Amino acid sequence: MLEINPKILNITPYQPGRPIEEVKRQLRLKEVIKLASNENPLGPSPKAVKAIKGALGKINRYPEGGCFYLRQALSKKLKVGADNLIFGNGSDEIIDIIIKTFCQEDEEILTSEVSFLEYKIIAQQNGRLVRTVPLKDFKYDLSALRKNIGPKTRVIFIANPNNPTGSYVHKKEVEDFLLSLPDNILVVFDEAYFEFVDQKDFPNVLKYIEKGKNVMILRTFSKIYGLAGLRIGYGIAKKEFIQYLERCRQPFNVNLLAQEAAQAALSDADFVKKSKKIATEGKKYLYQSLKELGIEYIPSATNFILLNLRQDGLEVFKKLLRHGVIIRDMYQYGLKDFIRVTVGTKQENTRFVEVLKEIW
Amino acid sequence: MLEINPKILNITPYQPGRPIEEVKRQLRLKEVIKLASNENPLGPSPKAVKAIKGALGKINRYPEGGCFYLRQALSKKLKVGADNLIFGNGSDEIIDIIIKTFCQEDEEILTSEVSFLEYKIIAQQNGRLVRTVPLKDFKYDLSALRKNIGPKTRVIFIANPNNPTGSYVHKKEVEDFLLSLPDNILVVFDEAYFEFVDQKDFPNVLKYIEKGKNVMILRTFSKIYGLAGLRIGYGIAKKEFIQYLERCRQPFNVNLLAQEAAQAALSDADFVKKSKKIATEGKKYLYQSLKELGIEYIPSATNFILLNLRQDGLEVFKKLLRHGVIIRDMYQYGLKDFIRVTVGTKQENTRFVEVLKEIW
Repeated sequence: MLEINPKILNITPYQPGRPIEEVKRQLRLKEVIKLASNENPLGPSPKAVKAIKGALGKINRYPEGGCFYLRQALSKKLKVGADNLIFGNGSDEIIDIIIKTFCQEDEEILTSEVSFLEYKIIAQQNGRLVRTVPLKDFKYDLSALRKNIGPKTRVIFIANPNNPTGSYVHKKEVEDFLLSLPDNILVVFDEAYFEFVDQKDFPNVLKYIEKGKNVMILRTFSKIYGLAGLRIGYGIAKKEFIQYLERCRQPFNVNLLAQEAAQAALSDADFVKKSKKIATEGKKYLYQSLKELGIEYIPSATNFILLNLRQDGLEVFKKLLRHGVIIRDMYQYGLKDFIRVTVGTKQENTRFVEVLKEIW
Repeated sequence: MLEINPKILNITPYQPGRPIEEVKRQLRLKEVIKLASNENPLGPSPKAVKAIKGALGKINRYPEGGCFYLRQALSKKLKVGADNLIFGNGSDEIIDIIIKTFCQEDEEILTSEVSFLEYKIIAQQNGRLVRTVPLKDFKYDLSALRKNIGPKTRVIFIANPNNPTGSYVHKKEVEDFLLSLPDNILVVFDEAYFEFVDQKDFPNVLKYIEKGKNVMILRTFSKIYGLAGLRIGYGIAKKEFIQYLERCRQPFNVNLLAQEAAQAALSDADFVKKSKKIATEGKKYLYQSLKELGIEYIPSATNFILLNLRQDGLEVFKKLLRHGVIIRDMYQYGLKDFIRVTVGTKQENTRFVEVLKEIW
């Protein structure tokens, strides 16, 4: 009998947000809006689209294995060395690479109970152990993380701001946390929503990397840069770490069009500014509308909002879906009375509020 | 001290073929041809390019996690169930998924000493053991593979046709080999070059999958379909296996444009036919030219040829490079006196032969 690796048997696969086309097809709806996956509602950067068109003639060729040109551009923009960067097929792949590089089979990762689900799933796929601690006031509880570090803990994943709560841990908390850590642990700050953050007390983790600390940053082109469909994320760390991480990367992991599009999107400051503005204004409108409806929410530093409905979120999800509004229920995250809604365009936000009012 | 996982320390990273742009830049050459990575010299399928253009407006959205439409199209074309397929960010990712699913940490994979390097590298990245057996007459030696199965062997990788030799194991050999195997082993036939094969005695492995055997096929859109830059490959196996493999797949592993392009390329029979014709005619021309030069080669069932130079291949590689012809030296594969050349367009093949004559 060919046995399945017993360590992967308990994995609960990630449930993605429902695609627009699928919902249209299944519910026979003409108008469907998706506020489920924290995507950029403006579409991709026009500069990225142009760059892709210019590169179509060479997609028969393997991509640049080391993301040469994109690496130069990003290094310049972030003011970090080109050898401080690693690129992945979305940040998901970099999470996999980090676990393979820094965590042995009998060792464990530590994260929050309610956070991006892939930390846990990818650790399980790799047969690594997972330990989680509860949130505190809907925020990562760094002192609980500190207390739960065991002898086998190797990597701590902190989504900052956190998904699905939208909350963040601030500068001082991070400073104290890092000072308190033993030196055999890597802390990964997943800053997928970094570009949406306005808060002045948001930590500057790059500073710790420059100081040679055991920290790493993950960022992505899937959110504010509007390139979720192309799959490209990156990691920042000290050179010594990148060199080891590179051993666990596949040679052609980032596709050619993603590289071209990301480089162009980086240079599209107007698009980023516009995207941030629409998120900020949208949040303001949604906060106000939720207050009027008497629905509690967690203030968000990102482009999405977690709503505490104090009633079954899956039911509300289903009702919204029947009206052609796709949001995310929070069953997978263990928050059954909650839903998460991405800030969309003005029209999309209005439509969401209209339907919510109707079913509330 | 933060330790690096000791199991990844011995990995020798894969050395990709040199990109055209990089060679132009470094050697200040205007005309450079690349016959190094077994890519399709005709470019991508025009239908694929058109499909990509039509999908650019939605690259801000995450891709279909399950490759819904492509899955339907491929299932129909191959006459297999939609649930017999798994898609990856290139076949590389499916190799990783297979190892995670069927091989435990203390177990091993078995393959040939001279074959696609990623089987070994990916097994090492996952901390699995690797056992290899030598080629016999530049072919996979199935009886040596059989003899080398140990109690810990779980997955056998057979590239068929093999890269970098271009040789293949035939129907009868595969039949006998599979009959001789214990039932706790998975055999993966990597058929990346399947569409170039003309030989009547090439095995029909699909038949064994239909019979429920412990076999799996890997194929790719990187070769005859001309989409190497987009990163998309697929695996075929019985439904029960696919269900387990899916647990080790990232939810958005195949980018949106790759899915659209692959679906369109599948329907472009003219392009595939033309691509095969150019490979067949090119091989004929190259065989003849090599004979005239007195250079030995391994007859190939693929779109590339392994040349036995009986002198240092790296030197010849360097000389060709200085003339703007990129081919592949075989140092990584342990074949120091060999080079591998991809069959290009008529003009590219002629150029390669001209330069080879000059330096020979």
